[in-house]
Amino acid sequence: MLGLVAGGSQAATTVDGYAAVDPFIGTAGSGHTFPGATLPFGMVQVSPDTDTPNFKHAYAWAAGYQYGDPTIKGFSQTHFSGAGHSDLGDVLLMPMAGPVRTEPGQADQPGSGYRSRFSHRSEQAHPGYYAVTLDDNHVRVELTATRRVAVQRYTFAAGQAGHVVLDLRSSIYDYPGKTLWSWIHIRPDGVITGFRETRGWAPGRQLYFALRFSHPVTGHQLLDTEPTPLYGGFAPPAAHDPSARPAIQGRDLEAVFDFGDLQGKPLVAEVAISDVDEAGAIANLQAETPDFDFDKVHQQARQIWQQQLQPFQIQAPAAMQRSLYTALYHAFIAPNLAMDVDGRYRGPDNQVHQARGFNFYSTFSLWDTYRAEHPLLTLLQPPQLTADIIHSMIASQQSSPYGILPVWSYAGLENWCMIGYHALPVIADAYMKGIRGFPLDQALQAMQASAEDPAYGDLKDYMKMGYVPIDHEPEAASKTVEYAYDDWTLAQMATAMGRSELAKQFIARAGNWRNVFDPASGFFRAKLSDGRFRTPFDPAAAGYGSDYTEGNAWQYSWYVPQDIAALIADQGGNTRFVQKLDQLFDAKVPPGAFANVEDISGLIGFYAHGNEPSHHVAYLYDYAGQPWRTQERLSQIVDSQYGIKPDGLVGNDDLGQMSAWLLFTAFGFYPVTPASNQYVIGRPFVERADLHLPNGKTFTISASPMDAAHPYVGQVTLNGRPLERLWLSHQELEAGGELHFRMQAHPNRQWATAPAARPYAMSADKYQP
Amino acid sequence: MLGLVAGGSQAATTVDGYAAVDPFIGTAGSGHTFPGATLPFGMVQVSPDTDTPNFKHAYAWAAGYQYGDPTIKGFSQTHFSGAGHSDLGDVLLMPMAGPVRTEPGQADQPGSGYRSRFSHRSEQAHPGYYAVTLDDNHVRVELTATRRVAVQRYTFAAGQAGHVVLDLRSSIYDYPGKTLWSWIHIRPDGVITGFRETRGWAPGRQLYFALRFSHPVTGHQLLDTEPTPLYGGFAPPAAHDPSARPAIQGRDLEAVFDFGDLQGKPLVAEVAISDVDEAGAIANLQAETPDFDFDKVHQQARQIWQQQLQPFQIQAPAAMQRSLYTALYHAFIAPNLAMDVDGRYRGPDNQVHQARGFNFYSTFSLWDTYRAEHPLLTLLQPPQLTADIIHSMIASQQSSPYGILPVWSYAGLENWCMIGYHALPVIADAYMKGIRGFPLDQALQAMQASAEDPAYGDLKDYMKMGYVPIDHEPEAASKTVEYAYDDWTLAQMATAMGRSELAKQFIARAGNWRNVFDPASGFFRAKLSDGRFRTPFDPAAAGYGSDYTEGNAWQYSWYVPQDIAALIADQGGNTRFVQKLDQLFDAKVPPGAFANVEDISGLIGFYAHGNEPSHHVAYLYDYAGQPWRTQERLSQIVDSQYGIKPDGLVGNDDLGQMSAWLLFTAFGFYPVTPASNQYVIGRPFVERADLHLPNGKTFTISASPMDAAHPYVGQVTLNGRPLERLWLSHQELEAGGELHFRMQAHPNRQWATAPAARPYAMSADKYQP
Repeated sequence: MLGLVAGGSQAATTVDGYAAVDPFIGTAGSGHTFPGATLPFGMVQVSPDTDTPNFKHAYAWAAGYQYGDPTIKGFSQTHFSGAGHSDLGDVLLMPMAGPVRTEPGQADQPGSGYRSRFSHRSEQAHPGYYAVTLDDNHVRVELTATRRVAVQRYTFAAGQAGHVVLDLRSSIYDYPGKTLWSWIHIRPDGVITGFRETRGWAPGRQLYFALRFSHPVTGHQLLDTEPTPLYGGFAPPAAHDPSARPAIQGRDLEAVFDFGDLQGKPLVAEVAISDVDEAGAIANLQAETPDFDFDKVHQQARQIWQQQLQPFQIQAPAAMQRSLYTALYHAFIAPNLAMDVDGRYRGPDNQVHQARGFNFYSTFSLWDTYRAEHPLLTLLQPPQLTADIIHSMIASQQSSPYGILPVWSYAGLENWCMIGYHALPVIADAYMKGIRGFPLDQALQAMQASAEDPAYGDLKDYMKMGYVPIDHEPEAASKTVEYAYDDWTLAQMATAMGRSELAKQFIARAGNWRNVFDPASGFFRAKLSDGRFRTPFDPAAAGYGSDYTEGNAWQYSWYVPQDIAALIADQGGNTRFVQKLDQLFDAKVPPGAFANVEDISGLIGFYAHGNEPSHHVAYLYDYAGQPWRTQERLSQIVDSQYGIKPDGLVGNDDLGQMSAWLLFTAFGFYPVTPASNQYVIGRPFVERADLHLPNGKTFTISASPMDAAHPYVGQVTLNGRPLERLWLSHQELEAGGELHFRMQAHPNRQWATAPAARPYAMSADKYQP
Repeated sequence: MLGLVAGGSQAATTVDGYAAVDPFIGTAGSGHTFPGATLPFGMVQVSPDTDTPNFKHAYAWAAGYQYGDPTIKGFSQTHFSGAGHSDLGDVLLMPMAGPVRTEPGQADQPGSGYRSRFSHRSEQAHPGYYAVTLDDNHVRVELTATRRVAVQRYTFAAGQAGHVVLDLRSSIYDYPGKTLWSWIHIRPDGVITGFRETRGWAPGRQLYFALRFSHPVTGHQLLDTEPTPLYGGFAPPAAHDPSARPAIQGRDLEAVFDFGDLQGKPLVAEVAISDVDEAGAIANLQAETPDFDFDKVHQQARQIWQQQLQPFQIQAPAAMQRSLYTALYHAFIAPNLAMDVDGRYRGPDNQVHQARGFNFYSTFSLWDTYRAEHPLLTLLQPPQLTADIIHSMIASQQSSPYGILPVWSYAGLENWCMIGYHALPVIADAYMKGIRGFPLDQALQAMQASAEDPAYGDLKDYMKMGYVPIDHEPEAASKTVEYAYDDWTLAQMATAMGRSELAKQFIARAGNWRNVFDPASGFFRAKLSDGRFRTPFDPAAAGYGSDYTEGNAWQYSWYVPQDIAALIADQGGNTRFVQKLDQLFDAKVPPGAFANVEDISGLIGFYAHGNEPSHHVAYLYDYAGQPWRTQERLSQIVDSQYGIKPDGLVGNDDLGQMSAWLLFTAFGFYPVTPASNQYVIGRPFVERADLHLPNGKTFTISASPMDAAHPYVGQVTLNGRPLERLWLSHQELEAGGELHFRMQAHPNRQWATAPAARPYAMSADKYQP
């Protein structure tokens, strides 16, 4: 415990944040989280895979596990937390007692193959620990992890021979031909190493592993199940005797390891991974798990997670408290370390590089996470983490064949998912908040190169014409408005660094959103290269290939985070703006309207809380001088979109973005415009939150009465003095202090409604270059 | 010139060995040599590929070029010299003037696609240089090389735009699915890098390259011609604009580079390769070709080859002289350097390793080359080369998943072609000859581990039963007799190193050939695990899956190089042995008898000079006291099996083994038993050969009269004293001196016929442990 009980205004007892986390939240439906074990920002995520249907039907299994499934196929070492599109599920292990079964079996035929039925009653999950009993396989399985090593403990039913199947064929988002090449070696020292190269989300991804068991392997089989391929090689020795081979290579490999009857003694399996090479995996294994002490690793994992969560003392109604600690847990899973113990990592050129002076991180879902996840990390995590993240991004840019900062990358590789160059707001936001420890000039250089990349997202036309023409590039309206915001963040940083020429150039680009604004309809629309808007136009139309990215005109037409005042003006002023916001939330949307866009979920009218373009929208009433309407919409969203059951996330957690939204919102403020250093005030959902910040200061949020009967903000004080504005600065949070909300049953239509009280960004004189 | 004119007994003028080489010898029919440019033991072999039919019909195109083909498809950077089975043909470049043609076209439709007709009249080839004019493409192409960089010079017809197609799809021994993954990057500095991973002879082989041109690329296309694959990724930027992409990845990649009209100025392309990574290829490029000076590289290549060939001053009838210098050239092509300039290389575990204190070599066709090629290198090349080769083999053994020394390996990887563990005779032969500079204990350890590998070639049964049983393992008779010889070489080395226990164990194994000798038929035959010979038995039957490896009982029953005296005794004595030898050579073999075994060629009766099991057989008459019969057979073989036309090699040159046979034979002696330090005397085919050995001594062979009318040895003197035995020791050669043969028209049935004059190995008391 961290001594949080001392101090006058603090609670008398500490909240056990670790115990409040429920890793099952988000594992049913669209949350796409996994229940298994990982460390904060760790490299392995060891977790059960219940079903891994092929590519075309895999959306629900993006994290390998769906709570409703009756069987577990095995325990793989890598998982995304909350991704939409997916990959990973590497190095699947499945233990069993009794006869060996080498085929995975059918997901809809429980008990077939090596998969096993299980009961949720036998499951246990805490941060860094997961356990389940496999009914058909007669094994108790426990999982824990260090940063780079997954540790699995199997207790086989006594009196039966124990086996472990290693299936390199299994993959999340699988399809024929996904595995390009793979191999397994049984080394003389008993360590089993392997390699798998896949053509998945990031094509050509190489994953190496080193696996060892706490008990001697008494027998093994190395199998290649590919139907005899046309092949230019000679058969290796022992090709026809799976039990005599010390090595195998191919595309459909599987191994079986036998242990005999262990008489109830548990078997520990340690699996280290590396993106670099076999030696890297072995070194990771040796560095992080020198012995087979599962309990020690589990206890370390628990302590590490406790240290992550305990500084944030949150008191709230029980369900909210559980949601919020789980959200903290989910927000602290990614980005992920993607570097071996010796500092080597793989870059977007698929080549090995050496990190010098920083830790290399990857798993950047930046279209999602620049909004609230990264701002949350800058606030709650030590600045070194963000400095390392930015350093990693710069290093990636420098070895990228495109010379561009990460868009959506993992394992160091780029997968080109989504749009924009949203590494820029992440870097600029951190810089504006005073985070240093990365090469500043290289950062700015990398940002500019990304924003001017002639091969990326039709930036060529964008730079020439001021917008992306839809006849040259799909999703052109979304791209134009997001590029314009990213440009503004570069201008912010350039200004602060005294690079006024560069700032001027990009502040001009930041106004490009106007080029796709259609005053007639009040929507952002895609323009053709001849300057006309594309017709016909349907503001409800959505989907890939339309004018918008995962959204429609209703959802995308609020996107000018850098200059909402100007957007309001263009929309015809505050009243018309609020009317239009209400139309968004109150629209009657036919069921199935977004059946073709699986990421659009969590609908309130056309507002889609399950997808990121909506995330800042509820806060926009503030900008029109009606903060009580923001408060109403937040209540509506929080009540309907979050829960503490497995289906408690209405959309993909998106590597922490959904969770970060809830955390900020529950604390009473949200970073509508990263890189502005402003947080926009909404309404809190906690009774009290003591945020012990990395700088040693404590920022406390308190609210009373906190109940459903008092959903409106009556008054706000900051350090005891009334706050008559709708925003806080990052400096105010970092200074520590107490933000108190007096809640009330009815709207306070007087508080902070004056124009001067409203949040600003680009429009404010002080941010002009 | 090396000042070879001085000295009393030497010729008055130097022979220009470099000029005598004809790289086209072996390029028609079964020789499988290539006419392109390479340095001695170099890493690149840049050469034209005329046709690359798919896997099933590729045998004749093992080196990419067949002299009879009417078109050239392009110029790739890697080729085997004389291999049977094949691979390589990496990074095909094809220049053209005029309109771009991106498809390869049909080999049987000259002028289709980017392939071009050519005339042999326009071809020029010398060691390290090749040139041709492409009629349809309007380009003069010249090739030369450093060790790791191929340099190509193109002179396009003036007035037409020049282009270069890079086709990563092209491969020698190709078939659908051979390319597992590949990519091309155009780097900001203009260097083009790339990668190809193939499932060929050595599955999972990774090849990297770095390519740059002497003139700016004015336009480019990066193309992926794979029909839209089911694919889990998002399209990268510029996916639909081949001219805007800076990078591409996939399985069927091609690039086109445009240069505009160069007005007759030549374009130089430099291509460095690396087995390690992109940085390795770039570093190799920068280290070896800092500028675009084709002429300088060409001159370097010429000087290096001259320095290799000039120490061996051979005077012989013109055709023989040409054959012999070409044989020296072919014998000095492989093994190949397989290490980047920084010492990194890829091992048989497909992982990157660092060579410390040695140069890493690969391309070991050991079943072929242990016989005469490696013994030739120990005699004619500096001992450092063989020390490096052995060091490379030991390093490979230490990183092999099987823990075994190379069998047939290239690019550091193992392809498991052929049988035996013939790295042992290579190491033991070198050791017995006094070559040091490699770790001796590790060498012996690696040799023993290879000879006891339980996963390899049924050594488990061989060690238990004394033979390989045919019901457990194919080609069991061949394996047993070859294992026994390899065992003897280990015993030789162990004895010399004072490891008498180990020697004893392996000298016992060296007698295992007796376990498959059938006294009834006089043949080696495959035994079943119950101890009986397999029936039915046909001594003429051959082919994969039979009792023998690329051979039949007639061809394999002479294989006891370590104890030919014992074999003669078992065969019933000298007379019956000679009768049986005559039956071999004089057998009436129906045409097409070996149609199913493409490697068996060069038939004289059942004697197959085109394949290695026959190579020592002509010398066996010596052992039965009839050296004039050996002399007759050698005349018969040399007359019928070698020539100076493109079809002048009757079988695969096998990485120099066919050439090494001719060289030794022409000098008058042959290493029937590597690791015995004995060379068995046949008859010479040179008038005079001054071998300036690496130790500074000169060993001279002279013979007179040297003409077809005097095919028999009348008398032999060594340093002026009559030699009354049928062998020379390695020490005698190394001491320098002159071996003179007086040739005569009729057999000398008296010379060296006494038992004491005969070559020995195991039977001699001095080699018993």
